[in-house]
Amino acid sequence: MELSVETLMISTGGSRIALLSEESANLLGVHSSDRIKITCNTQEMIAIANIADYFPSNRIGLYRETVSALGVKEGETVKVLLASLPESLFNIRAKLHGERLREQDLVAIVKDVVERHLSTVEIAAFLTALSIHGLSTGETEALSRAMISTGKTIDFGPGPILDKHSVGGIPGDKTSMLVVPIVAAAGFTIPKTSSRAITSPAGTSDRVETLCPVNLSIGEIKEVVAKTNGCLVWGGSLELAPADDLFIQVEYPLGIDPMLLPSILSKKKAVGATHVVIDIPTGMGAKIKTRTEAYTLASDFVDLGKRLGLKIQCALTFGEQPLGCGIGPALEAREALTTLMGGGPPDLREKAVSLAGMLFEMTGVEDGRALAQDMIDSGKAMAKMREIIAAQGGNPAVKPEDLPVGPESAELHSEHAGKVLWLSTDDIVRIAREAGCPKEKGAGVILHAKLGDTVHKDGVLLEVYAERASKLESALALAKQLSPIVLSKKPEEKMILDRVPEQASHEKTFMLDR
Amino acid sequence: MELSVETLMISTGGSRIALLSEESANLLGVHSSDRIKITCNTQEMIAIANIADYFPSNRIGLYRETVSALGVKEGETVKVLLASLPESLFNIRAKLHGERLREQDLVAIVKDVVERHLSTVEIAAFLTALSIHGLSTGETEALSRAMISTGKTIDFGPGPILDKHSVGGIPGDKTSMLVVPIVAAAGFTIPKTSSRAITSPAGTSDRVETLCPVNLSIGEIKEVVAKTNGCLVWGGSLELAPADDLFIQVEYPLGIDPMLLPSILSKKKAVGATHVVIDIPTGMGAKIKTRTEAYTLASDFVDLGKRLGLKIQCALTFGEQPLGCGIGPALEAREALTTLMGGGPPDLREKAVSLAGMLFEMTGVEDGRALAQDMIDSGKAMAKMREIIAAQGGNPAVKPEDLPVGPESAELHSEHAGKVLWLSTDDIVRIAREAGCPKEKGAGVILHAKLGDTVHKDGVLLEVYAERASKLESALALAKQLSPIVLSKKPEEKMILDRVPEQASHEKTFMLDR
Repeated sequence: MELSVETLMISTGGSRIALLSEESANLLGVHSSDRIKITCNTQEMIAIANIADYFPSNRIGLYRETVSALGVKEGETVKVLLASLPESLFNIRAKLHGERLREQDLVAIVKDVVERHLSTVEIAAFLTALSIHGLSTGETEALSRAMISTGKTIDFGPGPILDKHSVGGIPGDKTSMLVVPIVAAAGFTIPKTSSRAITSPAGTSDRVETLCPVNLSIGEIKEVVAKTNGCLVWGGSLELAPADDLFIQVEYPLGIDPMLLPSILSKKKAVGATHVVIDIPTGMGAKIKTRTEAYTLASDFVDLGKRLGLKIQCALTFGEQPLGCGIGPALEAREALTTLMGGGPPDLREKAVSLAGMLFEMTGVEDGRALAQDMIDSGKAMAKMREIIAAQGGNPAVKPEDLPVGPESAELHSEHAGKVLWLSTDDIVRIAREAGCPKEKGAGVILHAKLGDTVHKDGVLLEVYAERASKLESALALAKQLSPIVLSKKPEEKMILDRVPEQASHEKTFMLDR
Repeated sequence: MELSVETLMISTGGSRIALLSEESANLLGVHSSDRIKITCNTQEMIAIANIADYFPSNRIGLYRETVSALGVKEGETVKVLLASLPESLFNIRAKLHGERLREQDLVAIVKDVVERHLSTVEIAAFLTALSIHGLSTGETEALSRAMISTGKTIDFGPGPILDKHSVGGIPGDKTSMLVVPIVAAAGFTIPKTSSRAITSPAGTSDRVETLCPVNLSIGEIKEVVAKTNGCLVWGGSLELAPADDLFIQVEYPLGIDPMLLPSILSKKKAVGATHVVIDIPTGMGAKIKTRTEAYTLASDFVDLGKRLGLKIQCALTFGEQPLGCGIGPALEAREALTTLMGGGPPDLREKAVSLAGMLFEMTGVEDGRALAQDMIDSGKAMAKMREIIAAQGGNPAVKPEDLPVGPESAELHSEHAGKVLWLSTDDIVRIAREAGCPKEKGAGVILHAKLGDTVHKDGVLLEVYAERASKLESALALAKQLSPIVLSKKPEEKMILDRVPEQASHEKTFMLDR
């Protein structure tokens, strides 16, 4: 059938979609989601058909991506035929029925995801099936390899190349901002890419961005690392394992994360990492709730690492409460700088020194922890951080107090005296986001009471920071309603954690950030 | 945030989608798939946000559905806010984790599907999870009720209201075209709605449409039934259980059918049926392959029927080969008429009389089969069919040979002599569709040899009909390649069914039609 092109100058986020009228679709025998082959002169392409009411029957609507891939102009005539469904879709169907997929099947799926030959409906079904059926180790390896080979890679020369990643899940975790300068100061290469917040108050990229640009090109990153041994950049636009970014878009509304392992390790492998520490925060307040779950995940990471040629150690870390006191991009960057300068909260210092120490010991250093501690005590880590900030285009002389926070702020006071029995990280995340995180970088929460701390009646539990008075007000109201910090004189006086359903129903949260 | 409306005069198939630039989305804290609240004067609505590159940051793109729901004009200013995710999405997430859903959870999902508050990604994940985890009887009932209550219903007055439905799966099954006039001729009410072919060569609506219009309004249907006791109409545009039509759109590319039971029975209940016979073709060539599977499905139907207040009997019918000889809309309509006139293939006559007989006996008739047979022998069923054709706007004097088939046709000959050992229904479906079915109504296949028949060397196995020579040629070539009819002198001479992978790989087929 010949149809005349109507260019729709809208982007579909990559998918190659063509609009047909119901009449043309009927004549072609095409249903919505069927594939059609569009031919224009010698150019051919396969697109996914969408059937639109009110669309002229002699036209075919092509979105921006399809127009440029095919190189057609408004009004040009193209030939349209029903095409067969892609082989990868049959692989997805097999997975829906619980079949094990072979390496070539997964390669076909990932390739078609990256080349936009699969619709979001089909990707959603695939990820749902993976989430329910789980993945075998072989499938996880094949997926990781497919995700690496369909993206770009960066070569930082001969190793060891060190890296660190958290599976995510506790707010205030700014450890990477310490581990990178500590490791780089000791002379090791650590090219750290990180993500922005999706469902959390701040991702590492959001924090670092208060100090210097993070949106660097691959060439710029190589220069920064050549100069300083390290970097702290946003990985989102580098097309390292780009399939993952497309998977995340679909996972986000569904609240599932079946690709955690291949997602993290494909990105490490793409930057040529040789030694990686994976942080698994474990506890009621974290993504991973129990030790059993954490040990299983850790062993899966180590196993997958072996298969991909990566040396991996996992750290199960205390995940019952936020790390440090500051939560929110600028508040966390302040705290990271203070800690690099020798101050800061003890849990953050301890965690950063421990993880950096593990990395050192993996490369043969005898007492890694001591070396890491020395990098802080000697001021070398802070000097290295300033080098990295300068190399990425920030102000190397920055002081913690230079970073703008607030300007609106208010305190939440305790109605009675007691010891902190538990903190709800979910609630603290909600309060910080209500205050404006992650988009408003000066917004957030400072905790004044953490597990085991003693609080007096009318004592400060937390401070809320916001860039606007209205946000401050709603975040403070939410904090009062949620009471995220629970006090008691002794544990045995406060045995009820929650009441169902009398208590205000809690939003079911899901942390996609990793 | 205030944005100015850009009206995109494209339809999205119902979903309320709004396009935002990345910049606006960032400022609002909106990710793709998040919900936004759009306010225009006093009108408010929730839409699903899509984030587009190259989209002006001061604009919001609204598709046709959203424009008309909100009543806005190009260039008008609207207020946009991040809205919370719909409750039904949390129910879907719970199902992804294998949780049982309560009636109110399923009602929320179905309501939001019909009101287009859920994206196709979210619906795909829901259907995938249902397909993998299965549904409890309670869930099936709740889904059916929700699907009924979100659609229209038709009241045909006091019962009994009879109905018949096939779960689908064998080609050439034109039984409904006989059961309806037989039942109506005996004085019972049988308002039969049916579907068009999706993956099969012909649906009942495609067949009947060669005789008379099938796209009637609810008012017209009531008139036809008042006049004739029966009808044979297309159910697709009546908005009876409209959720199902939206589910089918998503199920189609995925090749899954978790909603078979609620889909069929919600539509029966919506037309007020009181007594229903469900045909379950069972065999290698059918959708349901084994007796175990068929009995389980039958008992689920009976059970669900009880819960919905429907009397149900299921017929497990022979599903090893196509029914009758004609396959394709017009070829099947011809055969149905011939059979109503007392001729036709014996398997079709036998099946129609048996199923109609079951319906009669369910209402208290002692020998239902005899009554059904009498309706054919006396000519009453054929007279009733002519009444229905006339009432729906067709020519009541139509003769089988009046229906145009072909005009191109060719025979497939047997290379040797033997008895028909088995037929591949999948292959016959592919050949009929290659010939032009279901869109080209004169296209199709006539089988000249069925199970157990003796064929001489060079004898005719089947005839292919097509409306165009090119289609005939490719269908005939496919028939030669596939050899859908397998001959042998004795079964023990032909033990190999297929060779893997030396044989031409077979397309994995899936029958969504029900």
